[in-house]
Amino acid sequence: MTSSTAAATATSAVGEPLPHTQSCIYLDYNATTPVFPEVADEMLPMLQKFGNPSSSHAFGRPCKDVVDVARARVAAMVGASPAEICFTSCGSESDTWAVWGTVMSARQRHGPGITPHVVSSCIEHPAIIECLSMLAKQSLLTFTLVPVSAEGLVSIDDVARAMQPETVLLTFMHSNNEVGSLLSVAELARLAHQHGALMHCDAAQSLGKVAVDVEALGVDLLTIVGHKFGGPKGVAALYVRQGVQLERLLCGGGQESGRRAGTESVVLLAGLGKAAELVTRELPATAAHMVALRDSLQQQLLAGLPPGVAQVNGPADDAMRLPNTLSIGIKGISAAALLAELSEQLAASAGAACHSSCDHGVSGVLQAMAVPTEHAVGTLRLSVGRHTTQRDVDRASTLILDYVARQAA
Amino acid sequence: MTSSTAAATATSAVGEPLPHTQSCIYLDYNATTPVFPEVADEMLPMLQKFGNPSSSHAFGRPCKDVVDVARARVAAMVGASPAEICFTSCGSESDTWAVWGTVMSARQRHGPGITPHVVSSCIEHPAIIECLSMLAKQSLLTFTLVPVSAEGLVSIDDVARAMQPETVLLTFMHSNNEVGSLLSVAELARLAHQHGALMHCDAAQSLGKVAVDVEALGVDLLTIVGHKFGGPKGVAALYVRQGVQLERLLCGGGQESGRRAGTESVVLLAGLGKAAELVTRELPATAAHMVALRDSLQQQLLAGLPPGVAQVNGPADDAMRLPNTLSIGIKGISAAALLAELSEQLAASAGAACHSSCDHGVSGVLQAMAVPTEHAVGTLRLSVGRHTTQRDVDRASTLILDYVARQAA
Ligand SMILES: Cc1ncc(COP(=O)(O)O)c(C=O)c1O
Ligand SMILES: Cc1ncc(COP(=O)(O)O)c(C=O)c1O
Repeated sequence: MTSSTAAATATSAVGEPLPHTQSCIYLDYNATTPVFPEVADEMLPMLQKFGNPSSSHAFGRPCKDVVDVARARVAAMVGASPAEICFTSCGSESDTWAVWGTVMSARQRHGPGITPHVVSSCIEHPAIIECLSMLAKQSLLTFTLVPVSAEGLVSIDDVARAMQPETVLLTFMHSNNEVGSLLSVAELARLAHQHGALMHCDAAQSLGKVAVDVEALGVDLLTIVGHKFGGPKGVAALYVRQGVQLERLLCGGGQESGRRAGTESVVLLAGLGKAAELVTRELPATAAHMVALRDSLQQQLLAGLPPGVAQVNGPADDAMRLPNTLSIGIKGISAAALLAELSEQLAASAGAACHSSCDHGVSGVLQAMAVPTEHAVGTLRLSVGRHTTQRDVDRASTLILDYVARQAA
Repeated sequence: MTSSTAAATATSAVGEPLPHTQSCIYLDYNATTPVFPEVADEMLPMLQKFGNPSSSHAFGRPCKDVVDVARARVAAMVGASPAEICFTSCGSESDTWAVWGTVMSARQRHGPGITPHVVSSCIEHPAIIECLSMLAKQSLLTFTLVPVSAEGLVSIDDVARAMQPETVLLTFMHSNNEVGSLLSVAELARLAHQHGALMHCDAAQSLGKVAVDVEALGVDLLTIVGHKFGGPKGVAALYVRQGVQLERLLCGGGQESGRRAGTESVVLLAGLGKAAELVTRELPATAAHMVALRDSLQQQLLAGLPPGVAQVNGPADDAMRLPNTLSIGIKGISAAALLAELSEQLAASAGAACHSSCDHGVSGVLQAMAVPTEHAVGTLRLSVGRHTTQRDVDRASTLILDYVARQAA
């Protein structure tokens, strides 16, 4: 007669394997993470609590409470106040809204005669770069993408030179999704504010891996993406500093204090909130776990290959690098072919995975870093996380080294 | 150690009560529906299948399959082909995208010198009206809202008179969410096409209640909202007829064939697809069930009140009315006060619920229909659905009639 949902109280912990992922090794945490067991347990009962949080009756009120708890948890994770957190449907929406909202609010202040200008980098996620291109094509903004170093880092001087009188926004990622480089966001925010511009930061890949605090960074807008830190896919947030004018992208009902319309997905928000709470509680342990496994993986691969064959992409300085990401280029192989052959045993990405913004099947990020083509074509992005084990890393190294040996034979 | 999800095979059916909703009567299906048991069962296992559908490894592929099944099921529900269905996060996003996309594509064809014009009605959902206002404020479009009759219907002559040489879009809802009036969408689509404009229809409130077929309607764009027909909140779709040019609202990754970026929420899509399949299979039975209960409710309320005290808002002709919606104005009471007092026993809406677009706490829809203020203030929107029972309706009538009697005493 009815659907029953039995949620076992989750007692999983950092470093424990997930039982349902044993047959294939998952080293693709930067693409998306498992829904952590505690998160799934928080979501399950919400499948039956179906009210509309905007309704003030017995079905609506408990759902509004769930949304409020989620908002407080996400706010705590980044050092914001709950009223500064707006829920969205994905990182792409948060990124698009940050750009669109800033530019449209500026047009309103200055009139359509002045075209707002945006500064960003050439290693941003396509959600930023494609949005800028699209709005530029519509003559709604102009933009400048600053280059990056061979390590995937941005020079503050390059950004300073790119500033124009019409610059209203700087948007730079906290860390790069492919090579894990950490950008100097606090410095960029100071520069933005010196020029009267706003600072947006896409922190999709940093949350749950390194500390992200909106006050320490001094950002005005910050993109938060739940499915990169143990939450479900299809829900995200944009931090909007109190007082910042941001035109709406999705208009309609009064949800999110009138800033983002759409009936809230209570079940996803329950999960996002729980994932944020885990980040707040566990970050040091998770980061240490990640570093240990990432370093082990890197060491095994480098030790197993002749000198000069493999090259790690990204900053040499560990302090400028995400703890969980290993982007490694292996000469003489095609990462895409390796991943296709091992697709039932090893889940990872090709650094050279083609986004729509790149040519010749080589990643735009690696191109921007001037990684030689042979290394770029052979680049694997291996990303570990909360439930990766030493055994996963050992098996993955063996699989990769065996594959490379077969190609050389 | 782990989160376990046990899904009982759901055998629920039209007309059966949901066990967890017994204490409070739910007559607010137009606000949001329960997640139907079969839908919850389809979603549960997806909490553990966490891959990114864009990944071509063992975690990604099964998720892509789930997305494909959902797309085929949603397409079948509205007579579209799967490639014409784009998933979004909510009805507001689908509506906003339809307007924004049409207008931006027109600007690209005609250049920014010509300002596109849109025709709509003054009883549309705020997602349409607020989006039009916002884009007009930015000088990106102009628009005309045609009036409605006292029954909440649009006159095709009024719409014809509103057409301008720059008109690129007609956007009209299939049915109104407050009073349930059914608009003449097929006729409006013909008019749009005669003028070289596109036709968008917000069918949020019609799916699962009346037949909606994109070919019979001749629409180019159609908004589909899962949480109004048994699916989860936070997922929706936009039907985009093959060949229609529609600029992207959310740019970035290549999801949805490059038309809408953002990592797919596989768990929600599984639910949306299942809900669509239920609609396709059960529509005649569900509609008959709804009509019977709605009529019973209407009859009990009218019979229990002195002549002239109650007035049903919306079309007198049942063929022009949703089968599940009763908007009834009761003189001498405040619907808001009634709902507040009964909030633990009866879940429903005030027709006069204040959207951001209305004045004095009176619904913009009822104002547009020129409903006298006393009736508007006393208007309840009672909406039944798949799991409403005769007992629910009988108890609700008693509660309402008792409340009115207490006020009169
Ligand atoms: C006619 C209509 N359109 C659009 C919507 C918006 O849907 P959502 O809240 O999912 O964005 C609704 C639901 O309230 C509606 O009734
Ligand atoms: C840096 C960065 N920004 C934004 C996104 C987009 O997130 P979503 O796919 O949820 O829109 C991603 C995820 O791919 C990302 O890595």
